[in-house]
Amino acid sequence: MNVLWLFAHPESSSLNGALCEEGIRTLEAAGHDYRISDLYAMKWKATVDRDDFAGEPGGRLGLSGVAGASKEAYRSGTLSPDILAEQEKLDWADAVVVQFPLWWYGMPAILKGWFDRVFVKGYAYGVTDPRQPGRTLRYGEGKLAGKRALVLVSSGSPEAALGPRGINGQLDQVLFPLLHGTLWYAGMSVLPPVAVYGADRVSPEQYEAAAALVRDRVGALWQTDPLPFRTQNGGDYDDELVLEPGLASDATGLGVHLAG
Amino acid sequence: MNVLWLFAHPESSSLNGALCEEGIRTLEAAGHDYRISDLYAMKWKATVDRDDFAGEPGGRLGLSGVAGASKEAYRSGTLSPDILAEQEKLDWADAVVVQFPLWWYGMPAILKGWFDRVFVKGYAYGVTDPRQPGRTLRYGEGKLAGKRALVLVSSGSPEAALGPRGINGQLDQVLFPLLHGTLWYAGMSVLPPVAVYGADRVSPEQYEAAAALVRDRVGALWQTDPLPFRTQNGGDYDDELVLEPGLASDATGLGVHLAG
Repeated sequence: MNVLWLFAHPESSSLNGALCEEGIRTLEAAGHDYRISDLYAMKWKATVDRDDFAGEPGGRLGLSGVAGASKEAYRSGTLSPDILAEQEKLDWADAVVVQFPLWWYGMPAILKGWFDRVFVKGYAYGVTDPRQPGRTLRYGEGKLAGKRALVLVSSGSPEAALGPRGINGQLDQVLFPLLHGTLWYAGMSVLPPVAVYGADRVSPEQYEAAAALVRDRVGALWQTDPLPFRTQNGGDYDDELVLEPGLASDATGLGVHLAG
Repeated sequence: MNVLWLFAHPESSSLNGALCEEGIRTLEAAGHDYRISDLYAMKWKATVDRDDFAGEPGGRLGLSGVAGASKEAYRSGTLSPDILAEQEKLDWADAVVVQFPLWWYGMPAILKGWFDRVFVKGYAYGVTDPRQPGRTLRYGEGKLAGKRALVLVSSGSPEAALGPRGINGQLDQVLFPLLHGTLWYAGMSVLPPVAVYGADRVSPEQYEAAAALVRDRVGALWQTDPLPFRTQNGGDYDDELVLEPGLASDATGLGVHLAG
C-alpha cells in the first residue's frame, strides 16, 4: 500500500522526528511504499492568497471568491504547482498519516495551511455525485473516500487532562475539526488518533513506550477500525442536516456524531 | 476602552470586510479607541521558525525547544519585532475581537499562526504566580486576565447544521480549541461567539441582519456575560486536572467545562 506521511514539526531532531522515523521503518518493514511531506523542510507556504490561483488573474478573493477561485483553478489545472504536487501525492496514497505537536489545541499553522491550500473546492469539498448533481458528497463520501487517515499528535499535557473529563478537553473532541470536519468531511476513513502525552519531558522508558505505540498503530493501519462517524447520506440526519430525534436521544455536543 | 481587532480575511472587499467596518464604526460611535491587525494586509508570517528567536543563535527547536526558545526570547526581549508589536497591541487592549471565515472548521492558517507566534511561553502560557511559583496561571488566570475576547466568524453552513445536533458540530464546541484552549487558557474572559451563517450567499436583507447582529454584539462588548468556563484553580478540578466527580456527574465531552 502507499502511505503519505505529513510531518509538521520544525526540527527533525525532536521527539516528533524520532517517532516519524519509527513509523517509516515500520512501513518499510511491512513492504509499503511511502512519501513524506516534511512541511518545514519544504518551506511550505501556509497562507491562502491570490498567488495560489495565478491562472485566474484579477479574481477577487471574497468569501465565495476563495472557494470560487480555487474551484476554477482546480478545474482548469492552474493551481499553484506546490498544491498540485500535494494533490498528486494524496491521489497516489491509500493512507495518510498526519503528525504534529498539538499547539494551542490544534495544528501548527503550517499544517492548517496545508489543508487550507490543498483541500480546494471541487477536490475535497463542493463535490457532487455525477449521477445525481444535487447530491453533495461529503462526510464519508467524496473523491478521497476509501483512503485511511491516522492522526498522530504529541502534547505536553498529561493523559488525564486530555481525557473525557480532563481540563484540556477530551482529545478526540478537541481534534473534531480535523478528524470529522476535515478528514471525514473529505470522505476519508479516520482512525482513532494516537497521542504521546507529557511530551515535553520524556524519559528513555517513556520514549520506548511511545515508539512501541507508534509502531503498533502504524503497523495496524489497515486492521484498525475507523471511528464510526455517521455518514451524511445514510439516513441519520434530516433535510436540515440535524441528527434525527431517535438517535442519541436528547444528547447534544460533538459525541452525537459517532454511531453506536 | 481599547480594542484590538484581529482580521483574517484575504479581501477587504468581502462580507467579512464589510462586517469589520460595521464593528469599527460601532466602536467609534461609542468613543472607544481601536487598532486593527489586518493579517493579510500586514503579510503576517504564519509559521513559527528559528527566525522568531533570532536572538537565540543555534538554538534547537525540538518540542520543548520551541517553548524554551520562545520563553528565553520573550524574557530577553529578543523576539522578532513583528511579534513584539502584536504583544504591545495586546497589552494596550482591554478587549480583542477575533474575526475570520471558518475554514475547515477552524481559523485560517494566517490567524492560527498569529496565536502560535504571539502567544509565547512566559507571556500566554507557562506563567506562574510570583507569590506561589508552583502555581500555574491559566484557564482564567494569567497575564491576559481581565481582557475580554469576542470571536466573530462567518460560515457557509446553515445555522442548524452548526447547532447542538447539527452535522457540522455545535459551534461553540467546534471552536473550543480557540475559545477555551487558547483565549481562556491565556486568562481572557471569552464572550459567546458571534456567527454569520450561510455566508456564501447573502441577500441584502441577510446582510442587514448580519450587520445589525455585529453592531449589537460589538456594542455590548462590556455588557455581555462571558462563557462560564470553569477556572483551573477554583476547586472544580482535582490534582490531575480532571473534573471533580460531583460536577456534571457522569457527563463527558467538552460541555462539562462550562459551569451551571
